Amino acid sequence: MSYTAPVKDMLFVMNELAGLAAVNALPGCEDATPETAEAILEENAKFCSEVVAPLNHSADKEPSSWADGKVTTSPGFKEAFRQFGEAGWQGVQHPVEFGGQGLPKLLATPCIEMLNSANLSFALCPLLTDGTIEALMTAGTQQQKETFIANFISGKWTGTMNLTEPQAGSDLALVRTRAVPEGDGTYKLFGTKIFITYGEHDMAENIVHLVLARTPNAPEGVKGISLFIVPKFLVNADGSLGARNDVHCVSIEHKLGIKASPTAVLQFGDHGGAIGTLVGEENRGLEYMFIMMNAARFAVGIQGLSVSERAYQKAVAYARDRIQSRDLAGSPGPVAIIHQPDVRRMLMSMRAQIEAARALSYVAAATSDAAHFSDDEATRKSNQAFYEYLVPIVKGWITEMSIDVTSTGVQVHGGMGFIEETGAAQYYRDARILPIYEGTTAIQANDLVGRKTARDGGAVAKGILAQVRKTVSELQGDAQLQPIAARLGEAADALEQVVDYVVANVKSDIKAVFAGSVPYLKMAGVVLGGWQMARAAAVSAAKLKAGEGDGKFYEAKLATARFYADQILPQALAYRTAIVDGGAAVMALAEEQF
Amino acid sequence: MSYTAPVKDMLFVMNELAGLAAVNALPGCEDATPETAEAILEENAKFCSEVVAPLNHSADKEPSSWADGKVTTSPGFKEAFRQFGEAGWQGVQHPVEFGGQGLPKLLATPCIEMLNSANLSFALCPLLTDGTIEALMTAGTQQQKETFIANFISGKWTGTMNLTEPQAGSDLALVRTRAVPEGDGTYKLFGTKIFITYGEHDMAENIVHLVLARTPNAPEGVKGISLFIVPKFLVNADGSLGARNDVHCVSIEHKLGIKASPTAVLQFGDHGGAIGTLVGEENRGLEYMFIMMNAARFAVGIQGLSVSERAYQKAVAYARDRIQSRDLAGSPGPVAIIHQPDVRRMLMSMRAQIEAARALSYVAAATSDAAHFSDDEATRKSNQAFYEYLVPIVKGWITEMSIDVTSTGVQVHGGMGFIEETGAAQYYRDARILPIYEGTTAIQANDLVGRKTARDGGAVAKGILAQVRKTVSELQGDAQLQPIAARLGEAADALEQVVDYVVANVKSDIKAVFAGSVPYLKMAGVVLGGWQMARAAAVSAAKLKAGEGDGKFYEAKLATARFYADQILPQALAYRTAIVDGGAAVMALAEEQF
Repeated sequence: MSYTAPVKDMLFVMNELAGLAAVNALPGCEDATPETAEAILEENAKFCSEVVAPLNHSADKEPSSWADGKVTTSPGFKEAFRQFGEAGWQGVQHPVEFGGQGLPKLLATPCIEMLNSANLSFALCPLLTDGTIEALMTAGTQQQKETFIANFISGKWTGTMNLTEPQAGSDLALVRTRAVPEGDGTYKLFGTKIFITYGEHDMAENIVHLVLARTPNAPEGVKGISLFIVPKFLVNADGSLGARNDVHCVSIEHKLGIKASPTAVLQFGDHGGAIGTLVGEENRGLEYMFIMMNAARFAVGIQGLSVSERAYQKAVAYARDRIQSRDLAGSPGPVAIIHQPDVRRMLMSMRAQIEAARALSYVAAATSDAAHFSDDEATRKSNQAFYEYLVPIVKGWITEMSIDVTSTGVQVHGGMGFIEETGAAQYYRDARILPIYEGTTAIQANDLVGRKTARDGGAVAKGILAQVRKTVSELQGDAQLQPIAARLGEAADALEQVVDYVVANVKSDIKAVFAGSVPYLKMAGVVLGGWQMARAAAVSAAKLKAGEGDGKFYEAKLATARFYADQILPQALAYRTAIVDGGAAVMALAEEQF
Repeated sequence: MSYTAPVKDMLFVMNELAGLAAVNALPGCEDATPETAEAILEENAKFCSEVVAPLNHSADKEPSSWADGKVTTSPGFKEAFRQFGEAGWQGVQHPVEFGGQGLPKLLATPCIEMLNSANLSFALCPLLTDGTIEALMTAGTQQQKETFIANFISGKWTGTMNLTEPQAGSDLALVRTRAVPEGDGTYKLFGTKIFITYGEHDMAENIVHLVLARTPNAPEGVKGISLFIVPKFLVNADGSLGARNDVHCVSIEHKLGIKASPTAVLQFGDHGGAIGTLVGEENRGLEYMFIMMNAARFAVGIQGLSVSERAYQKAVAYARDRIQSRDLAGSPGPVAIIHQPDVRRMLMSMRAQIEAARALSYVAAATSDAAHFSDDEATRKSNQAFYEYLVPIVKGWITEMSIDVTSTGVQVHGGMGFIEETGAAQYYRDARILPIYEGTTAIQANDLVGRKTARDGGAVAKGILAQVRKTVSELQGDAQLQPIAARLGEAADALEQVVDYVVANVKSDIKAVFAGSVPYLKMAGVVLGGWQMARAAAVSAAKLKAGEGDGKFYEAKLATARFYADQILPQALAYRTAIVDGGAAVMALAEEQF
């Protein structure tokens, strides 16, 4: 049930693929030296594996519970969260002026990965608080920042996102919660929000809800939604806690997974109105919420990576321990099942996809840092565009992949995997929410097709493909790398055809193009993940040639990249056919023919 | 939560693809007329949807429970099982001389599909009893048959399969349970069996365990295993129940899914020895158990189909009801999500795979009937070989597919899918056991590679491929069918390359070949399922041309076949690459590099 943080692989990706040195050279990132990064990762690894990871399975068995409007979290959570806040882990990527460490996203990302590997349910609370901080840093007043952010970073208070209502899931145009101005700068809110992660709990003194609502006479649809701060306890002028606000948790959900994370139904204003203050301007709430959501979407992609890594470690441990059947190539007695080719294939498939996901998401984080910190506007712009193209892929592809990886993890365990005590099944259950919340895979794919590909005529996508081709040509000289280059080249060609198809047909045949949106997203993940695997292979081959570092580690990188090239990348060609030729059949049936 | 049996599609597959008329013409199958088939299906559909299906979700919430060695099944199970037995459903495919209906497998298969769609947990009890009947019919003495089979068919008694022990999962060579001859024709058994489905319950008067055990001085390994009948209550000479036997259920498992089905740990002989009688000859137990397992493997494949169908129906119903977002092509207000292209893609993907699985498994059932009933030895032989090739594919491919389909079913529901009350999550949990029990997918794939492909140099596989090519050429004239023919042709070529690769390399590079065994199995499923979809399309096009029958039904068949060809069949090409080129990388890492 233990978790060992893959710090060595994380550092490899940070240093060799994501360019930590370049990030470190950005203005404001002077503290993010490779040495500091290693020290922080080691320290975070210790905290996550020793304090948080041991609570994962026990909390699944004893989930958070609701009684009389109060939520009691799983045993150990409160104390672990106190330690988390005190150690400063909430503040890694947040401003120094409010007590954070002000470190780049590239450094925060492995910390988030580790926390989520240790305990997905636990990590959701800080994840939502991160989003709240980002939204307030962008759109909040100085007073709002001062009132809330330091308390978030210290772990005294936590934040939530309140979007969904019973009739408004993915479609926020349908939001009905009302916010009535009181004339004193405050508003009274009335309505019901559902699926509010950590909407109520006992780990913090205050819970600060960011709530989407409509003011009177606001325009219909998404252009009439404003964002409000509604704290559980009102905050006095001196920063102390005041009266209990009229927001109450009426129930929590009984879920398939992440059971320790309370998913609240919140009732606003049943006793006179919940007092809230506006964030930014009226009717621009969705815009601000998107800041939060983009941060959260990236983080949920990391959750997919995290739960996959945990499932992989458990599967490897079982495969090493479980003695069963002889070796196919002959052995005197039964051997550990890790010697069986199909078990090996399953483990390699988990491993290869995890490494690709880690590499691509860390590269995305570094791009975000360049977009944020660079003093050159053109660099900021191009990196921002690259990052925004990658966000739906990191969210959609990695979380969909995590379903497959955690399912494979169960399969490696055979019958024991189906027994809840074993623990492998928990990852399979937990992972299932990831392609749903913070925007389903279809929502991510719509974003990828509409805003990220069609809008600029595929320019950003083509720019990235040019970089992929550069990698292909760099690999081509080396006999060992040539097979990887060949597969990557084919896959890049296929992706380019898909980008061309999307751009050419999005107006004339919108339904066919969007019918291919999720396959396009998955394909982009497969290809760009394969690109990072190829880059990792090139670095590893060079290190081996130079006789530098841990040869076994680099050899494993090469073998894993080759596995990815042979077994995962060819899926890109099947996706191309499905997207380019498969659009018409998707919509062929009438509704009543289903 | 309701289930509507897809009787129309079942009859289409039976009549048009599996050749019910030809089965009906076999000696002994005179009763299996198309009219009888339709009547039986309608009656079974009524029973399954009205009596059994309503217990599915409630039983998941109130699973079977253990106390003091006794297992209480979920509310309603006992009564439903009584009705099941009384109505004669256990006996559909079993001999008339013991009270069965003696109908062919092609007719029993849709009944098994419906029962499992209605309630996977409930259906497991009859499934195991079916296997017990088959084993006794093959290897039992006349007296054993007379003592047990009529009571099985009437539903008074049920049967179990006892293979697994804590140290012996997939590897039966490690079985340790001892059977000591008493000199009076009986044996005393001592040992522990785990994962025994319905090993203890309250739905029948007696539970008859078929148990693998070793006699003293038996050879080591699988050649020293014998099969014993060990009833819970001994049976007196007059057929009445005698003393309680020394086999006791010491616990049941806490599982991810199929929670209403009790999975027992059985202790044999803790109080002096469990009395058993030998089935067939000593040391031939595994051979007899394989009879049971082959029947059970096919049935578990059907379970994959069943749970997929149920998940699909639920997803369609939700997609029709849930109003959310505007139509992409423009609509005044929000529409049901079934209008969204990605929801449509998900539903089509579920539907297409389900139809392919139903067609291939029913075709396999008809082949089994020809192998069993034909009066021509060559026909029996060729059909038996075809059937045996298909069994691991039906088991492995359909159950793996069911993970994907039930996962997609959750995704269609968005956030509601993750809430247990919705019911979609149950199918996702239930399905997860299917690629594990009755032989994991790897075990099926080993069988496909070793016994079913390599042993005859690929002859049976090539024979089937020749039939696939015949279908391709039949479709080629028709413009509407041409795109399907093209994809099927490509996929068949790829499968042939894989068969050649397996045959050529299985001796020289055994690990690489077996590393590709599961991809080969899945690929064979994809291609042969696509073959059946193509055949369905050809029949439908002909019906439409002739103006016969329900035009909407046949148009939907054509569109679904086209979807399958564009979106599913291209996976075959990716599998080919993975199998033929990907073997080496699978085994490249040393154990300590994981």
